[in-house]
Amino acid sequence: MPTYTAPVKDSQFILQEVLRVAEQDIPGYDELDAEFTSAVLEEAGKIAQNVLAPLNPVGDRQGCKLENGVVRTPEGFKEAYDMMRAGGWPAVDADPAYGGQGMPAIMNLATGEYFSSANMAFQMYFGLTHGAMSALYAHGSDAQKETYLPKMAAGEWSGTMNLTEPQCGTDLGLIRTKAEPQADGTFKISGQKIWISAGEHDLSDNIIHLVLAKIPGGPEGIKGISLFIVPKYLVNEDGSLGDRNALSCGGLEEKMGIHGNATCVMNYDGATGFLVGEEHKGMRAMFTMMNEARLLVGMQGLAQGSVAYQNALGFARDRLQGRDVTGDKNPDGPADPIIVHPDVRRNLMDQKSMIEGMRAFTLWGATLIDRAHRMGDAEAEAMISLLTPVLKGFMTDKGFETTVLAQQTLGGSGFTREWGLEQFVRDARIAMIYEGTNGVQSLDLVGRKLPSNGGKTIMAFFEMVKTFLKENEGEEALKADFLDPLKAASKDLQAAGMYFMAEGMKNPNNALSGSYDFMILFGHVCMGLMWAKIARTARAALDAGASDRDFYEAKLATGRYYMQRQLPATALHLARIRSGAESVMGLDAANF
Amino acid sequence: MPTYTAPVKDSQFILQEVLRVAEQDIPGYDELDAEFTSAVLEEAGKIAQNVLAPLNPVGDRQGCKLENGVVRTPEGFKEAYDMMRAGGWPAVDADPAYGGQGMPAIMNLATGEYFSSANMAFQMYFGLTHGAMSALYAHGSDAQKETYLPKMAAGEWSGTMNLTEPQCGTDLGLIRTKAEPQADGTFKISGQKIWISAGEHDLSDNIIHLVLAKIPGGPEGIKGISLFIVPKYLVNEDGSLGDRNALSCGGLEEKMGIHGNATCVMNYDGATGFLVGEEHKGMRAMFTMMNEARLLVGMQGLAQGSVAYQNALGFARDRLQGRDVTGDKNPDGPADPIIVHPDVRRNLMDQKSMIEGMRAFTLWGATLIDRAHRMGDAEAEAMISLLTPVLKGFMTDKGFETTVLAQQTLGGSGFTREWGLEQFVRDARIAMIYEGTNGVQSLDLVGRKLPSNGGKTIMAFFEMVKTFLKENEGEEALKADFLDPLKAASKDLQAAGMYFMAEGMKNPNNALSGSYDFMILFGHVCMGLMWAKIARTARAALDAGASDRDFYEAKLATGRYYMQRQLPATALHLARIRSGAESVMGLDAANF
Repeated sequence: MPTYTAPVKDSQFILQEVLRVAEQDIPGYDELDAEFTSAVLEEAGKIAQNVLAPLNPVGDRQGCKLENGVVRTPEGFKEAYDMMRAGGWPAVDADPAYGGQGMPAIMNLATGEYFSSANMAFQMYFGLTHGAMSALYAHGSDAQKETYLPKMAAGEWSGTMNLTEPQCGTDLGLIRTKAEPQADGTFKISGQKIWISAGEHDLSDNIIHLVLAKIPGGPEGIKGISLFIVPKYLVNEDGSLGDRNALSCGGLEEKMGIHGNATCVMNYDGATGFLVGEEHKGMRAMFTMMNEARLLVGMQGLAQGSVAYQNALGFARDRLQGRDVTGDKNPDGPADPIIVHPDVRRNLMDQKSMIEGMRAFTLWGATLIDRAHRMGDAEAEAMISLLTPVLKGFMTDKGFETTVLAQQTLGGSGFTREWGLEQFVRDARIAMIYEGTNGVQSLDLVGRKLPSNGGKTIMAFFEMVKTFLKENEGEEALKADFLDPLKAASKDLQAAGMYFMAEGMKNPNNALSGSYDFMILFGHVCMGLMWAKIARTARAALDAGASDRDFYEAKLATGRYYMQRQLPATALHLARIRSGAESVMGLDAANF
Repeated sequence: MPTYTAPVKDSQFILQEVLRVAEQDIPGYDELDAEFTSAVLEEAGKIAQNVLAPLNPVGDRQGCKLENGVVRTPEGFKEAYDMMRAGGWPAVDADPAYGGQGMPAIMNLATGEYFSSANMAFQMYFGLTHGAMSALYAHGSDAQKETYLPKMAAGEWSGTMNLTEPQCGTDLGLIRTKAEPQADGTFKISGQKIWISAGEHDLSDNIIHLVLAKIPGGPEGIKGISLFIVPKYLVNEDGSLGDRNALSCGGLEEKMGIHGNATCVMNYDGATGFLVGEEHKGMRAMFTMMNEARLLVGMQGLAQGSVAYQNALGFARDRLQGRDVTGDKNPDGPADPIIVHPDVRRNLMDQKSMIEGMRAFTLWGATLIDRAHRMGDAEAEAMISLLTPVLKGFMTDKGFETTVLAQQTLGGSGFTREWGLEQFVRDARIAMIYEGTNGVQSLDLVGRKLPSNGGKTIMAFFEMVKTFLKENEGEEALKADFLDPLKAASKDLQAAGMYFMAEGMKNPNNALSGSYDFMILFGHVCMGLMWAKIARTARAALDAGASDRDFYEAKLATGRYYMQRQLPATALHLARIRSGAESVMGLDAANF
């Protein structure tokens, strides 16, 4: 059985020492002192470790079952769900006016990582509710907010997102689900939605479906899409549950992983729906939901990588096999622990340097969200908008790769169910696909985000890196190991951007052929910046005579590894980008 | 349901046009004319497509069941097994003196790819038998060969390899299974072996276990290991089956994939065993078996990548979503097929260029085996020995990555069981682990193979690349696209070798920290060489006015993609290698 220990110390280090959250000028951050964040993280960690983690293999083996239209979640999920509700975890960062805890988003991401590491399939029930709440909060009417949000914040009701149909995933313009206006102002929703996570289950009393549909007579394609609230049970005026709505779960998808989460075919048969926002403006509201969801999905990559790494490390310390080539390390035992072997160490350092950097990347991203939402800071809004596809695409790719590396650390044991690593691999895999495949993220990045604001935001990113380098240029201890590699990587990113500008004008495929590499390259530069910031913090702590020297030295060693072994990938991605569309599009589709 | 079509045309192209097998001076190759190899490949392809492929999802869902000591394979496996037997497929390249078909090894690999693509879990039953036969053929006594080989060649009996025990996998010196000598010259074998593929099943009448064990009083560690034949049923003098031996399957492993193959705990309780070769020289025989098995495992990486790619391509052609940014390609439809999108194309080209290159790499490797075994060519023997860890490590890593890319092509469908891509990912994953993890392959490469013969073999490899470049230096059509990139990649490999020589002397960890990168770098150079050879062949065919121009142009386009987008990875691997042990080993094991 795999184990999990919430990395509270590392989260605290990022929050309090690297990001210095309590000193930031973001409303609500003044409360985030070390004592407070530690208490929240410890509490979340306990639930993750003691309640959710033991249910992770249970959920994987039992899966969800559909019987007579009712979905049964795995044993223990309901009890865990109720415990999470009682602790207020479904609405950590929701508005207190609607029953939320009112904490900044950063605390939702910091604690969400633990829940997701412990049990990704379980945590998704809350994740979906969170996304639906955000969309309603941003676009719903006051009456809608009052009706739905407090119950959702309390976890009494849960939420879903209904986008995909059999004939359309990425291309939502092809949606066929119809919303026919009724005399009373409601709509009759008819159509089939697929791959609806948490579409039906036995954890909450009601399920609030947010459904994309087309009002007949509206504009063609994506401009004719509207968003509707379609509750499983209609809600009476007094807030109590009324009639069952005309919708049902038509089937559960059999899939590679996240078996504990019900992936439903949802059939809407003239179900009563309530318009959210304006007619035909559904995509705007959906984007609110999706952007946030993308960050949470990026965090899932980190989360699965993190728990997989912990188990790989434990195995590498325990498993005795072979001898250290430079001299026995466990002379009284039959062999040395495999962590002595350089290739095992390389594997572990790949994991560790990726995970710890991604944790910083996630929490830094969260500060931008809070800055945007709590201060209305347009630059922060633009920056997180630019970085969202990078956070989602890079972190889910690398998170998945980390689970594969961790599985490899265990050798044959990694392939067995007993050790649990293979579940992390299977669960992590979906994060590269849902909420827009990572390919779609890269198109969003290169096709939309990069050129937006006339390129001002990417310039602001480069400026930020430059400022950081300038601020620290006197730090000899950081120069060769951190600052120079960051500078080189940032230059590669700039060169890629220049290539797109010059060659994308001639042929858009020159830019689109390099979009994926650009996304990963961008992610590496962000990670390089994170590690440079971590190194500066660790160096300063050591210089100031910090007592926990091993911790800070470990940060420096891990950061050095990232800069020497991971960051040089930027040059490869740049080379691929610069090769343009010719080799990518050179082969006629008919001749594959 | 996934589909599979055996890539006969591509295999024929490699065999007949790139490798020109019939013209090679290897005994038996004169029979390999185009008509003969085509007939064999077509026949194998039919069985793969029509019989084995439909059973692949069946095997995955049903798995194997252990009831009262008997293992039941999935429905249909027995019938398919008997059909394969009837066709002589278990012993394509075995000695006719012992019932084999006597074809060169290259035909076993060429056809084995199809069987493995169609149903990896099923094909493994034959793969294990093949390995056991090779060990017996090389190291058994004449009497042992006569007793066992003809029945195994006929598939009446099957074989296994018993190495791993709970406390030892890579480090076989820790083996505890005992072999106590008896007065009649036999041994009593006692101990537990784990992860024994095909250890018990209902496909064959007898199972011939090859078991590593220690004779009490022998040398410590790996030098005290002997190899034994331990049949499930003892064989009477007349060749009929006698008493059940004292061995049993104690359990089946639950695992991530290859569910159709029984992974057994095998308990030996004083079972009668027969020594193979000399006492304490078991590792030598085991290596015969393992080296061959490693090639077959490398081929499995290709095979899973290949079938995954086919299904990804089919999906990309059918799925309508979005529009070509340079103009509609399917104006009468609701959207264009996704193959028009550059990022989908990039994904497919990554797969295609990898698969086709690996097919050439595999078959070229097979010619070296045939040269070594059929001609006693010591240089070919040394070369394939050097390349074995590269073939195994590179092809299983890249084969797995290819299945992941193919799964990604399908978006959400790729995560569902229905489409079958996720099974290819789960099945392919084991190939990076068994027969020595890829990390162990890299140690074998850098620690043993590279320095063997005083480095003569690696020098011969570089010489071979140089000769190829020289032979073609006048070919302007190949220079920029193929020859120059190959030259640059080969230089990176040489530089890595130089680094190991210079810095590995100072500290062996400097070499060992870069072993994995070296293995992948080496693989890329081999692939670069393959693509350059393919390009030369295609160019010549076009210049000679070949009628099937699209086919050869596609080879050139795919090769160009590999050279521009994949091969530049050599620089990254070199950079990682050159960073040495410092960052890899810099963090004390206690401070992780």
